[in-house]
Amino acid sequence: MKLLRYGEAGHERPGLLDPAGTVRSLADHTADIDAALIGDSAAMAALAALDPAALPAVEGAVRLGCPLAGIGKIVGVGLNYHDHARECGAPIPAEPILFLKATTALSGPDDPIRLPDDADKTDWEVELGVVIGRRARCVAVEDALAHVFGYCVAHDVSERGHQLERGGQWTKGKSHDGFCPVGPWLVTAEEVGDPQALALWCDVNGVRRQSSTTGEMIFGVATVVSYISRFMTLLPGDLIITGTPAGVGLGQRPPVYLKRGDHVRLSIAGLGEQNQTVV
Amino acid sequence: MKLLRYGEAGHERPGLLDPAGTVRSLADHTADIDAALIGDSAAMAALAALDPAALPAVEGAVRLGCPLAGIGKIVGVGLNYHDHARECGAPIPAEPILFLKATTALSGPDDPIRLPDDADKTDWEVELGVVIGRRARCVAVEDALAHVFGYCVAHDVSERGHQLERGGQWTKGKSHDGFCPVGPWLVTAEEVGDPQALALWCDVNGVRRQSSTTGEMIFGVATVVSYISRFMTLLPGDLIITGTPAGVGLGQRPPVYLKRGDHVRLSIAGLGEQNQTVV
Repeated sequence: MKLLRYGEAGHERPGLLDPAGTVRSLADHTADIDAALIGDSAAMAALAALDPAALPAVEGAVRLGCPLAGIGKIVGVGLNYHDHARECGAPIPAEPILFLKATTALSGPDDPIRLPDDADKTDWEVELGVVIGRRARCVAVEDALAHVFGYCVAHDVSERGHQLERGGQWTKGKSHDGFCPVGPWLVTAEEVGDPQALALWCDVNGVRRQSSTTGEMIFGVATVVSYISRFMTLLPGDLIITGTPAGVGLGQRPPVYLKRGDHVRLSIAGLGEQNQTVV
Repeated sequence: MKLLRYGEAGHERPGLLDPAGTVRSLADHTADIDAALIGDSAAMAALAALDPAALPAVEGAVRLGCPLAGIGKIVGVGLNYHDHARECGAPIPAEPILFLKATTALSGPDDPIRLPDDADKTDWEVELGVVIGRRARCVAVEDALAHVFGYCVAHDVSERGHQLERGGQWTKGKSHDGFCPVGPWLVTAEEVGDPQALALWCDVNGVRRQSSTTGEMIFGVATVVSYISRFMTLLPGDLIITGTPAGVGLGQRPPVYLKRGDHVRLSIAGLGEQNQTVV
């Protein structure tokens, strides 16, 4: 299933994308696509049993929101692709580097990216998002994927000046409002299959800047979920963003950053595409 | 008002502490002490108008939980007391250092502190907790305190090995389950008065390790709220933990860390006392 939330920001309604690419409403079947729903296997089984073609089609162009409400925490993995670590001049991490992104950063996949007032080093990062469906605490690597509900495109927008030049912790550069577009869809794990075999790319103003596959991750999804669960309990609705491949603005020679009017497009195979204008 | 939540973990009920020190139930007046309640000035005014003596007394010894449900994010300020920065061998920060702590770390004020399996450098940090009551985005220093709902004791338990020796970001050492005891009470701002004039201390096994006042902060509460609001929107129910004074285990010569069976007591004047056993 490709779950989604459509409508005005703060008033999104639940829906899904049917196999023909039509947005269908789930409003008669669930109040929202939220952490409580995806943690409830009976409720999810009932949704999966619906005939998408029998659901009301949503007419016209609609805004999509973040496809999941009630995300409790966003855990980021830093420098998780070999070529990105190299372009940052950083050593290959011996174990995953973890950071948290404020949940107030969440936005819809096509919402504009607002540059903070004093920002001049705002950068793009296409990432595979992993949504937890079942509580995970100290889980083994071989059990970890059973705790994953699904996957999504996540954009880990990062203000490098705030991230790297303002005290050492990355928090300030990662947490601005709108710095975590998610979606267009939350795709259930069984529909995605192997999370380490997904092509992903990012274009800025029509120039392909990032192009890789999730197979290039240093620490794969199962390892990352297991590892994080040793440091904090993961709950249904928690989002893990798994790092970005080479080609970010910081990695260009000289560096290139986002400016007002730029257009960013990013996608992961099977998970849809995001389109953002920088304002 | 001194708001609190009492009862079994995950099933706490709303209450307050009356002027005589008796826990009184607010269950007939609100479903919970949560972010929605404290962001609703009419609902808060109705609670403030109640006669505490007319509320049902809660009999017997009760467990206290974190005094606020639905905390959306925990923003920490690092190295925010001169003497603590010195004992860490760190320069005095030119601006606040920010980090995030996972909300799954929250616990009640007297809940045991569980050492992670491979932890041997778990440390104490008494801190003034600031709870936001009104949305704050890019607010001026002189307006910042109007966005504060109240104050509480917060214990920023920190595993130094995970914080400082595992990749540079502090997240891993700050976010373990139970590493953020809060309470016993959430005290409304008007009852606290000047947040920079509060004595705070921490004892470990009966030895006074930390003793200072919030007047020794490098960046005071108003400055910190204003500063954070430039990097992320603060919402009602967000918690800011404002840094710790000297005397942590890392600052001892040689360092001293918590071990199973240790007892930690910490308090801030007017905000109550926490008592934890390390297990």
